[in-house]
Amino acid sequence: MRRVLTRLKNLFLPDKELSAQLEHLLGFKPKHLPYYQLALLHRSKNDELARNNERLEFLGDAYLGAIVAEYLFKKYPTQSEGYLTEMRSRIVRRETLNNVANRMGLQKLVQYNTQDRGIERSHIFGNALEALVGAVYLDQGYTRTRTFVIKQFLHAYVDVEMMASTDTNYKNQLLNWAQTNRQSLSFELMTDKREGARRMFTVGIFLNDALFCEGTAYSKKEAGQVAARKALELIAGNH
Amino acid sequence: MRRVLTRLKNLFLPDKELSAQLEHLLGFKPKHLPYYQLALLHRSKNDELARNNERLEFLGDAYLGAIVAEYLFKKYPTQSEGYLTEMRSRIVRRETLNNVANRMGLQKLVQYNTQDRGIERSHIFGNALEALVGAVYLDQGYTRTRTFVIKQFLHAYVDVEMMASTDTNYKNQLLNWAQTNRQSLSFELMTDKREGARRMFTVGIFLNDALFCEGTAYSKKEAGQVAARKALELIAGNH
Repeated sequence: MRRVLTRLKNLFLPDKELSAQLEHLLGFKPKHLPYYQLALLHRSKNDELARNNERLEFLGDAYLGAIVAEYLFKKYPTQSEGYLTEMRSRIVRRETLNNVANRMGLQKLVQYNTQDRGIERSHIFGNALEALVGAVYLDQGYTRTRTFVIKQFLHAYVDVEMMASTDTNYKNQLLNWAQTNRQSLSFELMTDKREGARRMFTVGIFLNDALFCEGTAYSKKEAGQVAARKALELIAGNH
Repeated sequence: MRRVLTRLKNLFLPDKELSAQLEHLLGFKPKHLPYYQLALLHRSKNDELARNNERLEFLGDAYLGAIVAEYLFKKYPTQSEGYLTEMRSRIVRRETLNNVANRMGLQKLVQYNTQDRGIERSHIFGNALEALVGAVYLDQGYTRTRTFVIKQFLHAYVDVEMMASTDTNYKNQLLNWAQTNRQSLSFELMTDKREGARRMFTVGIFLNDALFCEGTAYSKKEAGQVAARKALELIAGNH
């Protein structure tokens, strides 16, 4: 691991400069720079296994999710588990993370194949932000990671109140899109399954008579919303 | 919150006894018992909002996922993100958690409506185990939660090596099931979508010519496996 990391060095800014930029971004001075260099390395730059940020993204995604969960649990002491789950998914979804990463200026630090035009439109900067959380965890431990996520991510870039108050009727948004684009659209109940004391519903969305995507939840209405949100994400990803 | 928790008391074992049983289970003496009482309270026993373990389950699920992620990240330093993701999903999936919860004896501590016959077959004990992780986090903080998850959950009940070596060819398992039960089964590619530098594949499983479920991954093969695993879970859930 150490040897691999040392050989990565020449891809990056001089250590002092990178360290200064990271300190500005993180709110503290990084101890072990190679963690951060790996977090900023997209696979398009280096396709050998274990020399890109995907493992750190896995780790960072997990801690980001946990810390945001705790933050919401304490911020909304009377809200249901369903509400907390929905709020968290709004905060950690790819679009939000990519948007925050860009505002943080991560695109200037991430090493990727600039010849690949598709990349700029994908979510590699949001993924690098997750990898950065993983690097902070390895470098600084849990408590500092928690502070970083709350202060430098949530407080600095995410308008949690606004997200909480946004009425996201995905089904309506999707129906509007279909009308504008003259697509035929239908929602159909696929499965209705008892799970212990509850029922689970899966709703499928059919676009021009072909199944486009599905959503599952504890109510038919919520399953339709989950499916519609997925559909909107798929559609946005194709443009 | 405190008032609600105090009123829950009479549902449970006397404090001293519950505390002793929890100490045995957790490996330490709980400080604030009401967190644990809430973690052990299923909604079927009490359907008023915020008086069941679902919020704690949300919190505990998040920390369990993060701690298992870190454990695997360090245990398998050369494995890919895909491998770590698959291993984690095997460890934290409902079936595994429910199985561990039963072996821990959680069914004796969880308060639920014993009249509801469906419950014993559902995953409420696995869910209570997640809620218990949430209670430990609130009561003891991150470091002790991490120790609890690693020692009392992973080391004591989960055979990670065995899970890693199990060849889970879900597609074959599903084909065997279909043959035995004389069902017609087919795998079809539903979508193939470019996402930045990669392609994402969605494979659908058709059971007697109706779409049964779907799986999405970065390769067609893996998407088929994801879909087949889902199908097996759905089938198991119906029996």
